[in-house]
Amino acid sequence: MKNNLKERSLAYHEENHGKIGTELKTRLNNREDLELAYTPGVAQVCLEIKGDQEKLYAYTSKANTVAVITDGSAVLGLGNLGPGPALPVMEGKAALFKAFGGLDAWPILIDSQDVDRFVETAELISKGFGGINLEDIAAPRCFEIERHLSERLDIPVFHDDQHGTAMVVLAGLINALRITKKSNPKILISGAGAAGLATARLLIEAGFTDLVLADSKGVISLDRKDLSGEKKQLAGLTNSRGEKGKLKEIIGGKDVFIGLSAPNILDEEDIRKMGEDPIVFACSNPVPEIDPDEARRAGAALVATGRSDDPNQINNLLIFPGFFKGLLENKIKKVDRSMFLRAAQALADFLPIEELGPQKFIASAFDQGLAQAIAASVSKVDD
Amino acid sequence: MKNNLKERSLAYHEENHGKIGTELKTRLNNREDLELAYTPGVAQVCLEIKGDQEKLYAYTSKANTVAVITDGSAVLGLGNLGPGPALPVMEGKAALFKAFGGLDAWPILIDSQDVDRFVETAELISKGFGGINLEDIAAPRCFEIERHLSERLDIPVFHDDQHGTAMVVLAGLINALRITKKSNPKILISGAGAAGLATARLLIEAGFTDLVLADSKGVISLDRKDLSGEKKQLAGLTNSRGEKGKLKEIIGGKDVFIGLSAPNILDEEDIRKMGEDPIVFACSNPVPEIDPDEARRAGAALVATGRSDDPNQINNLLIFPGFFKGLLENKIKKVDRSMFLRAAQALADFLPIEELGPQKFIASAFDQGLAQAIAASVSKVDD
Repeated sequence: MKNNLKERSLAYHEENHGKIGTELKTRLNNREDLELAYTPGVAQVCLEIKGDQEKLYAYTSKANTVAVITDGSAVLGLGNLGPGPALPVMEGKAALFKAFGGLDAWPILIDSQDVDRFVETAELISKGFGGINLEDIAAPRCFEIERHLSERLDIPVFHDDQHGTAMVVLAGLINALRITKKSNPKILISGAGAAGLATARLLIEAGFTDLVLADSKGVISLDRKDLSGEKKQLAGLTNSRGEKGKLKEIIGGKDVFIGLSAPNILDEEDIRKMGEDPIVFACSNPVPEIDPDEARRAGAALVATGRSDDPNQINNLLIFPGFFKGLLENKIKKVDRSMFLRAAQALADFLPIEELGPQKFIASAFDQGLAQAIAASVSKVDD
Repeated sequence: MKNNLKERSLAYHEENHGKIGTELKTRLNNREDLELAYTPGVAQVCLEIKGDQEKLYAYTSKANTVAVITDGSAVLGLGNLGPGPALPVMEGKAALFKAFGGLDAWPILIDSQDVDRFVETAELISKGFGGINLEDIAAPRCFEIERHLSERLDIPVFHDDQHGTAMVVLAGLINALRITKKSNPKILISGAGAAGLATARLLIEAGFTDLVLADSKGVISLDRKDLSGEKKQLAGLTNSRGEKGKLKEIIGGKDVFIGLSAPNILDEEDIRKMGEDPIVFACSNPVPEIDPDEARRAGAALVATGRSDDPNQINNLLIFPGFFKGLLENKIKKVDRSMFLRAAQALADFLPIEELGPQKFIASAFDQGLAQAIAASVSKVDD
């Protein structure tokens, strides 16, 4: 942790009590404005919407607003802190929606970690929003919540920790392979939570076949009797060579390590055991699976982390603002998995191939036009 | 309805798709800012709050943010439109919180008109907000909802249609009596919904004793067998002379008419039957109980309506921004009824007595310093 980061971050948050507020998009300077914005004029707008609820998109903030919803059960890599302590992350997310996607967003903390109560609560408050971004919800609960909400609601529901991460990892991997000129890489994913499982699934859909997934107990394989649901499904889709053992026992010879798990679980020796010019994505946040400098010292050809203070940030921030921009601008009602592949490809292709190198093989969130490029890829669903 | 008001209001709402958005309160211009606002710095803020949830007020938008919550069961005077069509009003309210109180606010539409589900939903999402403003919820459900939420939550809960209206009516009445030099006025309140019942209760607490309350069936009295709950309670506290009959049968001789009911239920003849120099508050919105010009023609000494386009606006807008400002600035956890009397008095006293007249006997929302004056009166609870 960099010197005085804690003090600076606390001061940054305390200065204005948080990061977001309400913005007025219209004039409210005199009685005439009040007549239009509030009574009596607003009554006419209500009656128009009563006649046709689709007009919410014309006359209200629903058109441009995302609910950022959490139960606080998996806050960053910090664990189950509960909804209150998750608020700074949710506000941060809302701020990023605005800064990088031009969208409005508001945090909703749901104080229940029961799937049914969570789903019912989110459903009951969904009408005012154009989309729902689920955030920092632990697996396997997050899978059920996303599925139930997607089925029930007529607005798009997206769990960023799963799909946002998966898309950014896929984009980073596409470009890392372009640089290292590897094909058919041996891939090891550490972490079988929301992000790890979703990333494995998306990499398979993208055509990668040599994939092993490991959790803290070791390889996710059909031999294991402790697996259920999503993990069991992935066991059947990965580990084609039937590997066994813990992470450190199987990292030897791998071309790609994708860490979506826990701080400091690898050391330099592990990296040295990997194949030639290994690719290391150490995305645990805020503390990565291995310090990126250590990984480079040990011979990693390409390194990425989830942190803003290191180059090559594998962070959902590269995708979600543009992805939701595409969803909302096109009034898309359901998220479709084909959008994930298209958006990941759009992120990978955003940088010209001839400019790719170890110091920059994935776009930065500050690159102009990134959100627009991703939004455009999403809306191709209508073709 | 003024010419082309509908078209202008629809255009006003369509221009930017609604009236509110998300405002960034902090810098997000480069990687350094991201390190503080998001990962890795934000993790430190989450951990601080995990250690002490009161720190939500220091580090997050909870300190300054009100949830504007409705079920859409009583939208303005338009009836039970449901939550979707209520959104323009909720956004308007949120915009007014910002414009007049400097507070942030976000609309929450709850898609259930069942008391228990509504209360549970509002409770489960309350942690991210510094206060709750209930809005456009029909009586008698609104009384139960407010009571349950106030009991369960550790943030202030306020039903503006009840208490905001009651406070503004009381303030207007105090000044109207100062001008007309009436004492012990005979008061008739038309409407025994949320606003009418709350106004009757607050006027009694303020010391008015000659008060009759009527709904569409006539005087609220202990003779009636169809009353329950709040109406029955008020029947025991009002109508000390045992009047009977419908509104038009009992308006004769009254000094004050307070309409919180329905459009166009009075005509000029009714006003002529009232006592000398009658005071007429016709607050039904958007269409008042009697056209204010008609009321004046028929001899009303002082007329107020709920509309922005008429002088002397009896609108909650005069109170709620300052009232919540006082609640939030002082981190008040529960609303206390003594605050209502103090805030109403602060609103009445805001205009110098020597300046009061028929064209202006109550402050305008645009008067500088009004919200501060009301906020200061609220916080006197700590004396």
